[in-house]
Parts: sequence; structure tokens; C-alpha cells
Amino acid sequence: MKKNISLLPDEVIDDLKFKNLKIIQNNNGFKFGIDSVLLSNFAAKSIKKDALVCDFGTGSGICSILLCGKTQLKKIYGIEIQKNVAKMAQKSIALNSLEDRFEVICENITNLKNIKALKPNSFDVIISNPPYKELGTGIINENNNKQISRHEIHADFNDFAIASKRLLKTNGYFIIIHRTERLIDIISILRSHKLEPKEIKFIYPNTGKDANLVLIKARKGSSKGLKILKPLYVYNEDGSYTDEILKIYGKK
Amino acid sequence: MKKNISLLPDEVIDDLKFKNLKIIQNNNGFKFGIDSVLLSNFAAKSIKKDALVCDFGTGSGICSILLCGKTQLKKIYGIEIQKNVAKMAQKSIALNSLEDRFEVICENITNLKNIKALKPNSFDVIISNPPYKELGTGIINENNNKQISRHEIHADFNDFAIASKRLLKTNGYFIIIHRTERLIDIISILRSHKLEPKEIKFIYPNTGKDANLVLIKARKGSSKGLKILKPLYVYNEDGSYTDEILKIYGKK
Repeated sequence: MKKNISLLPDEVIDDLKFKNLKIIQNNNGFKFGIDSVLLSNFAAKSIKKDALVCDFGTGSGICSILLCGKTQLKKIYGIEIQKNVAKMAQKSIALNSLEDRFEVICENITNLKNIKALKPNSFDVIISNPPYKELGTGIINENNNKQISRHEIHADFNDFAIASKRLLKTNGYFIIIHRTERLIDIISILRSHKLEPKEIKFIYPNTGKDANLVLIKARKGSSKGLKILKPLYVYNEDGSYTDEILKIYGKK
Repeated sequence: MKKNISLLPDEVIDDLKFKNLKIIQNNNGFKFGIDSVLLSNFAAKSIKKDALVCDFGTGSGICSILLCGKTQLKKIYGIEIQKNVAKMAQKSIALNSLEDRFEVICENITNLKNIKALKPNSFDVIISNPPYKELGTGIINENNNKQISRHEIHADFNDFAIASKRLLKTNGYFIIIHRTERLIDIISILRSHKLEPKEIKFIYPNTGKDANLVLIKARKGSSKGLKILKPLYVYNEDGSYTDEILKIYGKK
């Protein structure tokens, strides 16, 4: 069945080389990176059959689309504040025939209360690859879409945690990826909303460098007790991907 | 020069095989482990010539003695609540002729205000290998000394942080080792006292396991921004020590 999906001039279809899934991205916008792939791989382990899932800041929909392929989730809602980005994600949903399992909602994370599909205390898992940088830090990108994806312009991590706590069931998981430099902020905010971090996995570029990314699995209303999982290295010494990364990308 | 140091029946002298340093330990008490060695090695990097240092919960004095050998610190005060343990540390000071550089103060961390040697805002570095377990968790050991060394009986980590904040200079370092399972507690407490975690290093038993110990370097009054240093593995696959550990032990 060939669908009639019209691309804008800067939009391209990329093949995810996984279960025949594809994604539409904007060549001048924020394109998905290894963090989205790592987040969906990490989150997939906590998503059971028929799970109700939400993706805060879904962007092009990359994590949600990968999770539709990797898990038997019932439905994932992708929240995206940027209208043009949300529209692009909707086209990817059509392209992959995921209309029954993945729905994009164009709204700010801080403004979800009136959306009927998002019932409080009803979600099994919420994932997020949120904007990494605090306002007032880092280089502000000229492209407005990239700014919103990278900087806490419309919502900060505290807003993400508040919304997550509201939507999750007790014992539901909030699973995120973030920059290690912000770990103390993130952990403090999570705990202040009774989203207790239970598992943390650090991503190191290679064995000689400091970690730059961190995967965190927090649990709503959980008791204390944290596991620091074994580290993940992205590159070998010769610059090639490690076996673990190749496996995540389905190439090993 | 032979000194007249009288050992109690259960006390033994162990050779640290480092700069001719020795330590007296009690065969029925809490004996130092790899955590003390890792802590002193990690802390040594932040201790400059003529630094004023404090060791909260010094126990047998192991970390302080190692730091006297590894650094050019001017003076280190070891705080130890247990009288018999403090006495044993004092004998180790005599045994190593460290009377000018290492002094034991037998007192509770919560009760340092009247001790003249410990002036507020005057310390460059405070180190601690504190009791790891919260009261009400874990197996309580029958030996009272071991209980106090392992469990937060007389003071908890919040007390350690309060005392540390009081004694440290602005920008001084509080450097600790703790169990990873308590990381969220520890980080939350540190930040609540404006002891901002700046560097964290996880210790993994080997490449296949979760981390069990964590080294943390916090800085009084510092701005945000955290580094997750490269991990430290203790054992190789065949059960032998890794090269990094052998190097720390001075055997490589």
C-alpha cells in the first residue's frame, strides 16, 4: 500500500534499517542522534506488552517509532510543542502505519491537564530525551527548532518531572537520557517529586574519557536503592563502534 | 629509634608496604579494606603542599596515614568517636612518627564546635569513609566497634555534611567514598549543604558487574557542573587485580 505523504522541501525520509521502519527528518532541523537510540534501547526493557507509554518532547518521533518496533506497547503518546515538528512526526506515523499505536499531541509539557487522552496516574512508562541545556548556558542555535530541542526554553526539567509524576501510575517508570554534567540537578529534581532513581547507566565515548551521557530509570513512589549499571562505551580505540553499540543498532 | 608501643592482645601491626608506613589494627575489629586505599588515592590528587585536612571517622587512621605518605599536607586531624579505636590510631601515629602531621581527636562529628584546633572555614580538604548503612538497614554486627564503623549509629551522613560545610574554606573539597546504592541520598544531602558534587568515580568489581562503590569530590560553594570520571575496575576476569588497582597499591 503506497501512501500519499507529501514532504516539505527540506524533509527527507531516512531508513532506520530496523523492522522496515522509516523516519522523516528535516535537513535543517534537529536530527536524531545516538542518544535517541540508546534511550529507546534502555527503555524497551521496562515496557511490557500492552503498556501505555508517553514520550515527552518526541521531536521527529524517533524514540516512539523505535519503541513501537522494539516492544509490544499498546499505545505511545508523543508530546511535542513545535507545530512543524509535530506535523513531521505525524507524517512518519502514517509512513510507518503506526496510527493505532503512536499519536502525536502538539502541546507544551506544562499544559497537559486538558488533554483527555492523558489521564493522571494511568501511564506505565514515560520516556524523555529532554532539552539538555539550561537557559543562559551554552551556545544558542540560530535555528529556532534546534534551540527548542536543545535548550529549556518553554519548559525545564522540573516541568518534565511534574508532568511525569502526574501521569505515571504508582511504580511506573520515568526513563530519560541526559548530560552527565547536569546529573545532580536531575537527581535532585526527580527525588523532590518522589520519582526515585533506581538504575543509572553512564555512556562513555571510549574507555579513556569521562562519561558524557547518562540513562536514568526512576520509579514513582518507589523506595530508595540505586543500581549503577555497567558502563556503555560508544567507540573502540580505533574510532569504530564497540560491539555493544553495534548490537544496539542491530548490526551484530 | 625504637619506640615503646604496647599492643593489646587482639592488636596487630600490619606493614602498608608504602614508604615504610605501618598500621595497628584489631583482629576482632573493623579492618581497613580497599575503600580506604581508593579514597586516599583519590583524595591525594586534591591535597596540595601545606594543606590543612580533616578525616571524619578516621578509625584506625588508615586514610590519614596513607595521605601523610602520599601528599605534603601540613596537618590532618582524624576524628574518631570510639575511644578504643582512637587510642589504637594514636599508637599508629607514634609507630610512624607522625605526631607533627596527624592528630586524633576522639569526639562525635556532631560535637566539634568546642574543639579549638578545628576552626570554622579553615580546612582545605575533608575526607571521609563514613558508615555506609542507614540505621534500620542491613545486618547489625555483634561487635560494637564494627557496628559503629558500618552503621549510622551516632551520626548520619547529614551530620557529616553539616560538620564538613562548617570546617571547610569556601572552595574547599569534601571527598568521600560511599556505597552506590546510597548515591541519591548522598548527592541530595551534599547539595542541600552547598557542597556541590564536582567529580564522581564509580568502582566496579569487574567489567560485567554493577558498581558497588563511589568516590565523590564535592566543593563548598561551587557552581554546578559534574564530571563522571572513567570507571575503575577492581578485578580482571580471572580474579586477579587490574593494573589500575596494582598501581594504586604501588605494585606496578
